[in-house]
Amino acid sequence: MYYATLRQMKKMLGQLDQWLEAAATFAQIKSFDPTVLLGMRLAPDQFAFARQVQSACHTAKLAAASVTGQTPPSHPDTEQTLEELRARVRAVIAYVDGFTEKDFEGAATRVINNPRWQGKVMTGADYFLEHAVPNFFFHVTHAYAILRHSGVTLGKADFLGPLSLRAP
Amino acid sequence: MYYATLRQMKKMLGQLDQWLEAAATFAQIKSFDPTVLLGMRLAPDQFAFARQVQSACHTAKLAAASVTGQTPPSHPDTEQTLEELRARVRAVIAYVDGFTEKDFEGAATRVINNPRWQGKVMTGADYFLEHAVPNFFFHVTHAYAILRHSGVTLGKADFLGPLSLRAP
Repeated sequence: MYYATLRQMKKMLGQLDQWLEAAATFAQIKSFDPTVLLGMRLAPDQFAFARQVQSACHTAKLAAASVTGQTPPSHPDTEQTLEELRARVRAVIAYVDGFTEKDFEGAATRVINNPRWQGKVMTGADYFLEHAVPNFFFHVTHAYAILRHSGVTLGKADFLGPLSLRAP
Repeated sequence: MYYATLRQMKKMLGQLDQWLEAAATFAQIKSFDPTVLLGMRLAPDQFAFARQVQSACHTAKLAAASVTGQTPPSHPDTEQTLEELRARVRAVIAYVDGFTEKDFEGAATRVINNPRWQGKVMTGADYFLEHAVPNFFFHVTHAYAILRHSGVTLGKADFLGPLSLRAP
């Protein structure tokens, strides 16, 4: 499950990269500064677009690292442009891509820590399903929703990406 | 994986039920007609709030039914009030709750059909990871985001719900 779900996260990050490209094209067509999009948000007390992208990246990276016991690479959230956000997304895609199914042996029972949990821990299984997956989709969907709200032309097919359809 | 993920979807639907309650309270405090919220949307060519809730319900129900080979109950998308949406959410929670882990034996290789796939099919494994899970989180997150955009007081803890934290 862990490996297959991380492959799906990798796929979603690839879609996110395409949304960022669509956002840059939209800004060009509408003749506005594309960096304006990085500050767009749906509510004043929600993360802006750039932070949603960074959080999606962070969550996927941390999910892979946590349940495999790895130390993830540091990404300091300093992106200032759509291109820099795309580079960040691609760096996380490459990181996630480096794992094999074998790396996830024992993931379910691994002890996961988080500074926000005040000394408590979660099992790898609980952390992955209750925390990593919902948080990943929360941020990636908010990134998508902010672009849609901003007028960028995207649809459900752009969200899901290509499906593994086959002949019956 | 299927059973555990559907338990997580059930949990998320329980959170959605709480957001609907928070939405009703918000409308009361602000003295506006709560049914206005059902028509709120983030973009003119996106589903409105009611349809996002219905779609989240539909996706969870169909995910459980499809990979177990069941015929799901019909829900005709006729909800007109927040209370009716809450009843819909609770009906799907009860439906998902009726499955046991044993029901998901063989889920990965089950053949899944969809009228939109033009005669093609997906395996249960591909359908679940590529279609059901992303669609479920897409709609439940959009429901959340529309309420946040509308001013309803919610935060990430309301999205995730209680975590299975334990002593180290």
